[in-house]
Amino acid sequence: MLSKNKIKLLTSLKQKKYRQQHGLFVAEGIKTIQELLNSNLVLQQLYTRITFNLDTSLETLITETDLKKISFLKTPNQALAVFKIPDSKPLPKTGLILVLDAVRDPGNLGTIIRLCDWFGIYNLVCSEQTVDCFNPKVIQATMGSITRVQIHYTDLNDYLSSTSLPVYGAFMDGNTVYQETLMKEGVLVMGNEANGISEAIEKLVTKRISIPRFGSIQETESLNVATATAILLSEFKRR
Amino acid sequence: MLSKNKIKLLTSLKQKKYRQQHGLFVAEGIKTIQELLNSNLVLQQLYTRITFNLDTSLETLITETDLKKISFLKTPNQALAVFKIPDSKPLPKTGLILVLDAVRDPGNLGTIIRLCDWFGIYNLVCSEQTVDCFNPKVIQATMGSITRVQIHYTDLNDYLSSTSLPVYGAFMDGNTVYQETLMKEGVLVMGNEANGISEAIEKLVTKRISIPRFGSIQETESLNVATATAILLSEFKRR
Repeated sequence: MLSKNKIKLLTSLKQKKYRQQHGLFVAEGIKTIQELLNSNLVLQQLYTRITFNLDTSLETLITETDLKKISFLKTPNQALAVFKIPDSKPLPKTGLILVLDAVRDPGNLGTIIRLCDWFGIYNLVCSEQTVDCFNPKVIQATMGSITRVQIHYTDLNDYLSSTSLPVYGAFMDGNTVYQETLMKEGVLVMGNEANGISEAIEKLVTKRISIPRFGSIQETESLNVATATAILLSEFKRR
Repeated sequence: MLSKNKIKLLTSLKQKKYRQQHGLFVAEGIKTIQELLNSNLVLQQLYTRITFNLDTSLETLITETDLKKISFLKTPNQALAVFKIPDSKPLPKTGLILVLDAVRDPGNLGTIIRLCDWFGIYNLVCSEQTVDCFNPKVIQATMGSITRVQIHYTDLNDYLSSTSLPVYGAFMDGNTVYQETLMKEGVLVMGNEANGISEAIEKLVTKRISIPRFGSIQETESLNVATATAILLSEFKRR
């Protein structure tokens, strides 16, 4: 049986503050955990209903009742693993880089990480206001893609001021992406769900691009940030 | 104060069975309700904290406590409206038509309806196994786009067997969409989140298309159905 203190520690990892304090994050479900185990991530402890045949010091078999107590899911899925948050890496200077300016929804960030993985974007640079990629909902939504995309959190003002790459930004009133020259190396900035790219960051964008609207009634407000990212990454990569 | 029976009726509309029985569905939030009021949909009754200045027989001012009782949201948003489910329309025979084969997630369907609206796709044909578009979560996710896209539910086998348009289907192993000739008029079929397009429907597809994967590790399983739809609709419309 898990001790009260252990349960308290594990459930605290739902909050960014405690993830940072302990340097740990949680992943759930056999498939996701398996993908994370096959990556460079370091397992701290696995709590599971069924054995993964790991080193016994790393694996704790637990009851359904205990799993329910520590799980963040409505329907716990056999196992919960605690991994160490990896050290941060140097910011990328080359290649095609996706930048997120305050994307807040964990589902959107998870979907965007999967898109980066699909399109071979190896670096995702997020503003400090972007939802934490070790948030359990993000981890669930990435379906393991988080192991193949390097995610950085930094001050975007500093980062974009110092890059020598062209800085593309998605705006409602930008040039149509279908006719724009898109460089193989560059930075693509996507903005917040409600407010788009912030004013300070807008000043650092060198090419404003847009996905044209085809509906005749023209009332649709905007595309969801994840679907807009999908279309723009497809445009960058197909050429 | 709302009667117990009224509350029971309203909350029952969370379930498809009761929506169909009563021919009614629920929309919440001032902005969404306003968009629906500005469309051809017929309001049955509005329950609200603040007046919309409608005909008094259509508007019921209610307390916060009553709103909480009838709302499907964690944080109720000022108003809840009940609209009549519109009569079904004839199935589309021309234009670019999106077809969904058992898409189950309300968020995905909502996002796809917004995409149709953005890209000027006026007809969305769904299999009977696709989540109901009058599900409250779908209505919330469409952000009003549901008023501008005609959504049909039908037997896809019959529908696709009788169409004279080319039938494109999204598969993991299809021809790359970037090189495929895409007709202005046609049917694009997207499959279920976990299983893709079903075997029976696969036989009716005349052109198998795919979004190429660019990641070098090639482990990403697949794109989410909403992001894949975004990319494919963009490809159909940009040319």
